[in-house]
Amino acid sequence: MADLKVLGICGSLRKASLNMAALRACGELLPAGMTLQITSIADLPMFNQDVFDAGMPEPVKRLRGEITAADGVLFASPEYNFSVSGPLKNAIDWGSRPPNQVFQDKPVAMFSCTPGPLGGARVQYDLRRILVQLWAYPLPRPEVFIGNAPAKFADGKLADETTRKFLTELLSGFKDWIVRMQKK
Amino acid sequence: MADLKVLGICGSLRKASLNMAALRACGELLPAGMTLQITSIADLPMFNQDVFDAGMPEPVKRLRGEITAADGVLFASPEYNFSVSGPLKNAIDWGSRPPNQVFQDKPVAMFSCTPGPLGGARVQYDLRRILVQLWAYPLPRPEVFIGNAPAKFADGKLADETTRKFLTELLSGFKDWIVRMQKK
Amino acid sequence: MADLKVLGICGSLRKASLNMAALRACGELLPAGMTLQITSIADLPMFNQDVFDAGMPEPVKRLRGEITAADGVLFASPEYNFSVSGPLKNAIDWGSRPPNQVFQDKPVAMFSCTPGPLGGARVQYDLRRILVQLWAYPLPRPEVFIGNAPAKFADGKLADETTRKFLTELLSGFKDWIVRMQKK
Amino acid sequence: MADLKVLGICGSLRKASLNMAALRACGELLPAGMTLQITSIADLPMFNQDVFDAGMPEPVKRLRGEITAADGVLFASPEYNFSVSGPLKNAIDWGSRPPNQVFQDKPVAMFSCTPGPLGGARVQYDLRRILVQLWAYPLPRPEVFIGNAPAKFADGKLADETTRKFLTELLSGFKDWIVRMQKK
Repeated sequence: MADLKVLGICGSLRKASLNMAALRACGELLPAGMTLQITSIADLPMFNQDVFDAGMPEPVKRLRGEITAADGVLFASPEYNFSVSGPLKNAIDWGSRPPNQVFQDKPVAMFSCTPGPLGGARVQYDLRRILVQLWAYPLPRPEVFIGNAPAKFADGKLADETTRKFLTELLSGFKDWIVRMQKK
Repeated sequence: MADLKVLGICGSLRKASLNMAALRACGELLPAGMTLQITSIADLPMFNQDVFDAGMPEPVKRLRGEITAADGVLFASPEYNFSVSGPLKNAIDWGSRPPNQVFQDKPVAMFSCTPGPLGGARVQYDLRRILVQLWAYPLPRPEVFIGNAPAKFADGKLADETTRKFLTELLSGFKDWIVRMQKK
Repeated sequence: MADLKVLGICGSLRKASLNMAALRACGELLPAGMTLQITSIADLPMFNQDVFDAGMPEPVKRLRGEITAADGVLFASPEYNFSVSGPLKNAIDWGSRPPNQVFQDKPVAMFSCTPGPLGGARVQYDLRRILVQLWAYPLPRPEVFIGNAPAKFADGKLADETTRKFLTELLSGFKDWIVRMQKK
Repeated sequence: MADLKVLGICGSLRKASLNMAALRACGELLPAGMTLQITSIADLPMFNQDVFDAGMPEPVKRLRGEITAADGVLFASPEYNFSVSGPLKNAIDWGSRPPNQVFQDKPVAMFSCTPGPLGGARVQYDLRRILVQLWAYPLPRPEVFIGNAPAKFADGKLADETTRKFLTELLSGFKDWIVRMQKK
């Protein structure tokens, strides 16, 4: 059986984003039989249906193709104003347009890092709900909230062992979930 | 007393956006003593804290200045994937960054147009909640949901008399609300 | 293979509840191989952890047993104040307490009837999200919103053919979903 | 000027509820010119419109009268399944029925205690949104989340000085908010 391909999407565009650092750490924590490719949403234009109709811009085509080709999508999500970041919502909007809404029947998983103690309890609420409504299959558990994030990273790397363990469990659970969702 | 200045922001970038058409119609339905200026969020880059820290891009400075100078902000909001459009969330994210979070203590109002029958019941849910959390003062009522929108416009203009009446009431209520919120 | 057993729960306690009438109609619209039992939540006391700890009241024990024994749960949900009715939230709270949280890994589906035109767009938002967080598996689609409900019933029975068709599709989709979720 | 009367409502029915203990502590932390009366929602029946129409039960009449007579309502809210507790939602549903929806134009404030670290970030989200939709005026800030609550109480009393300070600020801000909202 071929390896399961997971596409990683980070909702923050900051160079030193801790969400991105945690997503990179996931690459070292994967179970056997799963690979992770991290994409970028920084080059997407703002969503505009006129632009979509006139012919999808290259970065949109690329992102939609990557999602379609992946067995699952892993979101690393910051929390901006208690909800999904503008850039991430924008990427979801581009992906969701018919025909070939790319999230339909797609297994997805998520974690969130925040500087404050809550770790993204509110953004996951919204992101999970939006993905359910798009007919994706969000992994129900474990839920991973990385609060007080700055203290858990050193030199741009995830240094906190407890968090690494949580992410390892998330990835292992995601593998089982993808297998289960791919059965019809 | 000087006229109350309202800034209009439309969450859709489409040229023929019905939300924008309804926002333009609002300019004809204002109560005495209130003016409406419509701005654009199309030229904002994607939110990135690095960019903000390096010096705000001109369109961000402009939008933040316009919001700060306004007595109230009126949102015309499409519903993308059951929530706030990427471009509108992006604009809110730019506006919300300290110092001088521009939504604090700002009276705001909203309406939404959708092609489907619900008229944006879900996006207003999210938008209202985000604005409350940003310490803005959303006008509680009337709520205006413009469902089945395409049938209510002709030649790019709001032609439905009932909808015009609802928007007239919204604007009149917004005027009273702004006056009330400006009293300390 | 034994018939799949679905438990129906209605969130309104009104005698002439249209949600309950629609739930009863579901009994006539089931696919082959599926049965529907409708339970009541009217006799549950208000949730109180002290009471739970002192020994579950009989109606709580009964409801938890019914949910545990069912292959899936179908919610007929009114919308009270834009969210889940007090009685239905109360029932979910009783069911969710450990040990043996009864919603874990349980396939669930829902529809909603409202007198207004939106048909429960907002309550399903909240109910779906709560159930996802409880690790249930909500059927992603079809979504059934029964707006302007009074006009669709006659003599306490669901008379609208379009709505009957939507419910038939919901039940058929729910059957497939249960089968799929029961595979490990 | 008469003292401002605040009505306290706790969403947990547990005898040793920490939310109730914190609400009682508020009685000692009030600014001058404000009084607090704590009511109970334990004796309310489950909401049923038939019962409402046949004549409001005494506890419902009492609660609605207390809310109407109060200058503001202060909610002490637990978080059950990431949202408003069944008993509290039930109380809101009873209060919201026309005629004389009791939350309309009522200043409200809230805090939440939870055993976990998040302190009710999610329930306040929902409660705030429901109250906004009911045209109440929720105090925008400060927001008070009492996480890891058991460690902050001793002998059933709020012992944590930081939390006492936060509640003092909440009450003082609530007083100003009520005064402001009562001006027309």
